[in-house]
Amino acid sequence: MLLEGEFVALFGGIESGGTKFVCAAGTGPEDLCARVSIPTTSPDETIRCVIEFFREATRREKISAVGIASFGPVDLHPDSAQFGFITSTPKPGWRNTDLAGPIRRALGVPVAFDTDVNGAALAEGIWGAARGLDNFVYLTVGTGIGGGGIIEGRMIHGALHPEMGHMRVTHDWSADPFPGACPFHGDCWEGLAAGPAIEARWREKAENLPSNHPAWVLEAHYLAQGLMNVICAISPRRVILAGGVMQRAELLPLVHRETLRLLNGYLQVKEITDRMHDYIVLPTLGDNAGVLGAIALAQKLAEGSSQRP
Amino acid sequence: MLLEGEFVALFGGIESGGTKFVCAAGTGPEDLCARVSIPTTSPDETIRCVIEFFREATRREKISAVGIASFGPVDLHPDSAQFGFITSTPKPGWRNTDLAGPIRRALGVPVAFDTDVNGAALAEGIWGAARGLDNFVYLTVGTGIGGGGIIEGRMIHGALHPEMGHMRVTHDWSADPFPGACPFHGDCWEGLAAGPAIEARWREKAENLPSNHPAWVLEAHYLAQGLMNVICAISPRRVILAGGVMQRAELLPLVHRETLRLLNGYLQVKEITDRMHDYIVLPTLGDNAGVLGAIALAQKLAEGSSQRP
Repeated sequence: MLLEGEFVALFGGIESGGTKFVCAAGTGPEDLCARVSIPTTSPDETIRCVIEFFREATRREKISAVGIASFGPVDLHPDSAQFGFITSTPKPGWRNTDLAGPIRRALGVPVAFDTDVNGAALAEGIWGAARGLDNFVYLTVGTGIGGGGIIEGRMIHGALHPEMGHMRVTHDWSADPFPGACPFHGDCWEGLAAGPAIEARWREKAENLPSNHPAWVLEAHYLAQGLMNVICAISPRRVILAGGVMQRAELLPLVHRETLRLLNGYLQVKEITDRMHDYIVLPTLGDNAGVLGAIALAQKLAEGSSQRP
Repeated sequence: MLLEGEFVALFGGIESGGTKFVCAAGTGPEDLCARVSIPTTSPDETIRCVIEFFREATRREKISAVGIASFGPVDLHPDSAQFGFITSTPKPGWRNTDLAGPIRRALGVPVAFDTDVNGAALAEGIWGAARGLDNFVYLTVGTGIGGGGIIEGRMIHGALHPEMGHMRVTHDWSADPFPGACPFHGDCWEGLAAGPAIEARWREKAENLPSNHPAWVLEAHYLAQGLMNVICAISPRRVILAGGVMQRAELLPLVHRETLRLLNGYLQVKEITDRMHDYIVLPTLGDNAGVLGAIALAQKLAEGSSQRP
């Protein structure tokens, strides 16, 4: 219970996406006290609107730090001259855009910066489907496949940040002659299994494909292969499978079955063999996962962790 | 400089392998003051010889902790009844063997326990090819493919431990009709690229294949695919490629070239694009990596880290 007059630190969160920037202030899922969605136009215009939102929001309550969970690739190295930049994105006008710098200067608060998937992973770990776990992976299957992870309590960064969608998987050309949709790698995981691949392969939007369409069994097969790679590389205690493609309710059970089939009993771990329904799960934070991730990044920064939690 | 009479803690290390157990006492590569190699026969006999070696070694100098870096699969969960066990190994007589327990009880010192590859990774990180890096992967390509990793300074454990050899990779059946040698997954990474796969595919021991044999270009292709998966999943700052297969000097440059070709410029990270020769490297600790890894595990335990560093 809060005592009267007690100070509660508010955090600002920015989910920076290719279509929209979602901004909010609060401390968690229960108290997002302001929230706005800003279309992603030019960097100048979009960043200006973001700053205006927070200036307005901070008139009423003080914000102690801002977090940005951004589409990428991004530069996460605190010692880099481009720290806080969106770097080699194909999105027109956004290549080499300094995102964290102008926001930090305008608002005068510390700014945490990470990938959208690392942010969402952090939020699901604090408030959502991975609460209490210090070792899990968050994957999103939509216009691409992206992944972030927490290992032994720490976010994966390394040389860049994970780019899980670009792993190789087995592609049986006789069963599936679709060459893959990734401009860099053709039939990598994302090239075979993200939303645009489904649409291009079947010449139909994924949401229009009926439940009994062979697309879903094939999709589960590719998703399970990438999941197998993630599980073998990182050994997570849970995998959260988010994104538009996963909104098809029939898909998750097919993915469970196919992952177990491919693993073929090799990993004798009860979490996997006996509780698959609780091992690969949907996210629980819904549309707010991204902006909550950004708030979680700000919170972690304010708590005195480094900018690379 | 040590003052006269100052206490120097010695550590015991046990590299537990399917062929031999290597035991040593010391504090690092420069002072392995005793070292022995014990054939892996029955658990009872082998463990008895290990205990005798350390009883003899500790007559002269006190050992403050012992580390075991073991072949697996192993149980690494400190809260499990089977912690310190080799579990579902196919090695005759060794299934469900308590390795850490009898050694701890006989020697009366704390015992750290981890996989052989996590141990070797730790040793290469302290004294070898990854010195100073808090984010790297250690892979060994021999009778199987195994991998361990340090992420943000912590070893990867999670639900079990990494089983990197069992990731899926692309297998072009028309170019390579060999079905793969993994008893669980057929043409997974290990099934296509470990030593036994080379031998079965070309009906010749790898060491007898000449340098200009097509085996090496194909091997580099498969190794590069698995490396791409590791890089995309974990984003390491360096990858150490160890094991018998990598002792062919012509292989590493082929792997460098093929990894860059497959990544196709997607990851704009100078460590990868400009310094590949320094990104995927051979180990530097040689034959002692395993036992030094075990000593490093003991050291980490004695320093007050948990048994799961």
